[in-house]
Amino acid sequence: MINRQIRLAARPNGIPRPDDFALTSEPVPQLENGQFLVRNLFLGLAPATRIRMSEGDSYAPPTAIGGILYGQCVGRVIASRNPEFQIGDMVHVDSGWQEYSLSDGSGVFRIDTKAAPASAYLGVLGASGMTAYVGLLDVGRPAAGETVVVSAAAGAVGSAVGQIAKLKGCRVVGIAGGAEKCAYAVSELGLDACLDHRSKDVGKDLTAACPNGIDVYFENVGGNVRDSVWPRLNIGARVAICGLIAEYNAAPSAPGPNWMRALTHRITIQGFMLRDRLHRRPEFLHDMQSWLRDGRVQYREDITEGLENAPSAFIGLLQGHNFGKAIIRLAGE
Amino acid sequence: MINRQIRLAARPNGIPRPDDFALTSEPVPQLENGQFLVRNLFLGLAPATRIRMSEGDSYAPPTAIGGILYGQCVGRVIASRNPEFQIGDMVHVDSGWQEYSLSDGSGVFRIDTKAAPASAYLGVLGASGMTAYVGLLDVGRPAAGETVVVSAAAGAVGSAVGQIAKLKGCRVVGIAGGAEKCAYAVSELGLDACLDHRSKDVGKDLTAACPNGIDVYFENVGGNVRDSVWPRLNIGARVAICGLIAEYNAAPSAPGPNWMRALTHRITIQGFMLRDRLHRRPEFLHDMQSWLRDGRVQYREDITEGLENAPSAFIGLLQGHNFGKAIIRLAGE
Repeated sequence: MINRQIRLAARPNGIPRPDDFALTSEPVPQLENGQFLVRNLFLGLAPATRIRMSEGDSYAPPTAIGGILYGQCVGRVIASRNPEFQIGDMVHVDSGWQEYSLSDGSGVFRIDTKAAPASAYLGVLGASGMTAYVGLLDVGRPAAGETVVVSAAAGAVGSAVGQIAKLKGCRVVGIAGGAEKCAYAVSELGLDACLDHRSKDVGKDLTAACPNGIDVYFENVGGNVRDSVWPRLNIGARVAICGLIAEYNAAPSAPGPNWMRALTHRITIQGFMLRDRLHRRPEFLHDMQSWLRDGRVQYREDITEGLENAPSAFIGLLQGHNFGKAIIRLAGE
Repeated sequence: MINRQIRLAARPNGIPRPDDFALTSEPVPQLENGQFLVRNLFLGLAPATRIRMSEGDSYAPPTAIGGILYGQCVGRVIASRNPEFQIGDMVHVDSGWQEYSLSDGSGVFRIDTKAAPASAYLGVLGASGMTAYVGLLDVGRPAAGETVVVSAAAGAVGSAVGQIAKLKGCRVVGIAGGAEKCAYAVSELGLDACLDHRSKDVGKDLTAACPNGIDVYFENVGGNVRDSVWPRLNIGARVAICGLIAEYNAAPSAPGPNWMRALTHRITIQGFMLRDRLHRRPEFLHDMQSWLRDGRVQYREDITEGLENAPSAFIGLLQGHNFGKAIIRLAGE
């Protein structure tokens, strides 16, 4: 069997270009004792992969030149010399961008494809949904009646944030790129309003949409959107920094807002990462599966066929071209 | 009796000038039922007064032109038509910069001058000490063995922060202005190291003084000092924003650091104010009075004689010329 991979060919400057990626192939290695082999069915794309394409002191060592790009897959166990994983098991694995995963089981967890389709475990039931869940509930800590603003509101994380905030009784205002995504956030996701970040004056739009100011800001983008939110944060507001996609391609990154408002308005700004909060998975899965079952949370997927198309889909993701969780289908189920 | 006051004559641009202040006098009014009169003995100077001299959306309405400057005094009740306050009571009062306070008792609390001299209730046992206590313990949340960095380490707040952090078993590195203050922070306050912010390369000095990085930053100044601390904050670090004295005179204020490190290192940045944490006064007074009694906390006062000299002492405070809590003696005890 031949395993194909996407590897980092060169460190990008700004938005990655197709030449920064290389498609390689090699035989699938023989299983050793304790290992099992997964046929990856879906690969999830996420902006965090871009961070690892650059060097620097970040939350993870950068992907080496020639290394497989970082990402999660769901797939089926097709061979096993590990008693805990049987052939046919459906699993979620930190595989990287490739068609097969060889694993000893560390970091792998089974997924329940009766509760939801396998691909959902890369999005609303996976890292995206759980990031939304812990970031909003544990870091943002919204109270019923408060105003929550979420950027990238139609994205995989943002769309879950907005819907969970609505379930918690908040006024929810999204910020998204373009009229179509904004319409989706209001009509499908149920947000109270959604503003286009390409608008002439996002600040003015925010003032109109948030008559009582902003209590929680779920930060996915940084840059100008953040700078429009900042002066509208209320006393005691919380900012949950999940992502800064507007900064990932910039060098040097833009400075943050002046801290005077954090002082005068006693604001808490907290960066968080899912990896520190994995103990919340049982509650997350319980809640999100029940919300999906009851139709209280909607999600969307933007599926591209074939590993060879992952780089262009990823470049599109960084430019906001996807609509829903960006997923690569690697094989038929 | 004639009461003298210092009033805001003009809004300063940058560092205030003597002309921005006006010394006025008027007769002490007659007491109405429920009121009492305090002869203020000491006035405490604090950088927060500068914030209120400017207009803008801050944590308090700005002092009006012609209004009495904001500040706290300790003094003695000399007349009373309020059954809860008797002649001779020693009290702490949000009086503003004046020689007498007419009060109905709101916000006034009695001070125990057997435990410490009256002036200490403007510094180590007053807002400065309590700000240090709640900011470090409740916002910074240092654990034994962690590294705490405090700016303005020889100041009224900073000197209490550093000593409390040492009492909690932390490695404590101060940043202060000049060799004399740094020597004091190490030899008198017991800090592990103190760096001069006028050094050629504060960042390099910090790296040397903090071999395990920085877990808690108690922020009093902002600006370049903050920018040197920022890239050295560890995963999970906490920044307690108490003050930004380097920004108070600037217009526009300097931008804050890029948020990427907050994301990658899961840093919490929290502005706080004493006014939200007044419920902690009993624990604070209990702890700080016992630390003073046991000689485990030292403090210093920088006393200037006479209300008429308050503006020049305050201008000096904003430039770091004071050494210890800046206090104006308004009358002999």
